[in-house]
Amino acid sequence: MFKKVHVFRVKPGQELLGEIERCCSERGITSGVIIGIIGSVENARLNFLMSLPGNYEGVGYPGPLEIVGAQGSVTLKEDSPIIHIHIQLSGQGLCRGGHLAKATVFSTAEVVIGELDYQLHRQYDSYTGLNELVD
Amino acid sequence: MFKKVHVFRVKPGQELLGEIERCCSERGITSGVIIGIIGSVENARLNFLMSLPGNYEGVGYPGPLEIVGAQGSVTLKEDSPIIHIHIQLSGQGLCRGGHLAKATVFSTAEVVIGELDYQLHRQYDSYTGLNELVD
Amino acid sequence: MFKKVHVFRVKPGQELLGEIERCCSERGITSGVIIGIIGSVENARLNFLMSLPGNYEGVGYPGPLEIVGAQGSVTLKEDSPIIHIHIQLSGQGLCRGGHLAKATVFSTAEVVIGELDYQLHRQYDSYTGLNELVD
Repeated sequence: MFKKVHVFRVKPGQELLGEIERCCSERGITSGVIIGIIGSVENARLNFLMSLPGNYEGVGYPGPLEIVGAQGSVTLKEDSPIIHIHIQLSGQGLCRGGHLAKATVFSTAEVVIGELDYQLHRQYDSYTGLNELVD
Repeated sequence: MFKKVHVFRVKPGQELLGEIERCCSERGITSGVIIGIIGSVENARLNFLMSLPGNYEGVGYPGPLEIVGAQGSVTLKEDSPIIHIHIQLSGQGLCRGGHLAKATVFSTAEVVIGELDYQLHRQYDSYTGLNELVD
Repeated sequence: MFKKVHVFRVKPGQELLGEIERCCSERGITSGVIIGIIGSVENARLNFLMSLPGNYEGVGYPGPLEIVGAQGSVTLKEDSPIIHIHIQLSGQGLCRGGHLAKATVFSTAEVVIGELDYQLHRQYDSYTGLNELVD
């Protein structure tokens, strides 16, 4: 179950992924689910996986764009936290989503994280070339 | 934690946001997380933030369109409930998401709200010109 | 509330919907919420509802495409489980979402299911021609 549900705001000009990492560290969250993020970004960089193992391309998107939603997890690889987020962005003329590399918040980002009552882990997978969830 | 998870259906022809407000009021939900919404809409109106403070444009989309997902929250500003939802819509030829202003349900909307064990609040922020989440 | 939150990985080459059905059966999950899915697909088939009752079209999408997110539910219709998922896909050049008919996992799919402490049900609705959620 979710032993605690954390809801916090990331503010204008802040880097979204870095702030989420900072908040997780500050609150001691090492295992959890990114239940949602909504708001808007001034700009964002998304990664798209092109081929295996681990070959992705990064694309920058200028804003303002709405953060329509986001999902992901907080896990540990050995003792290091890994926050893995996919995010959906949209404006009137463009809609794209992918792996969140970085993003600057425009008006706000309202982040919801469900902290788990057990520890999630990742380990390197040579087939995908990525740090994959361990069941 | 989520002290209760509410799952309910909004039916054909009903206005989605208004029905969610009505259900929250009826069930006494004043603090919660919109975990998800899926279904389809006959039409929808989305808002896109263009510049600060608070300058957005509304765009109407004719359906039918799939509701691919939605995220958001139920909060109080002073004693008034505010339900803030971003929604993702898609057809075969168009995919857009944004701030849900209103939408008419086509076949169904399956709404999931996690009711929180503590109260979320909003207050007016003069920089963004919007009612922002208070941490 | 969510009595248990299940987090598991679906692996490269596996069919996503079938594997989720198998995991739910194996874990005895008959009532729950698909809180999220992220990862990537090699290909996918989405359904779009065109008219009522129950007239949809299926469209195949070649990948690789990012799984940006997914939402849905695990319910029973009489004694048979029904897993209803809407999924959002995106590449650099295309972004679409809809009802998940099937998909082959590319690198991974990280699935989060919140198991409910009460039973959700569906029944056939002659107006929509679909199995709809019973409140």
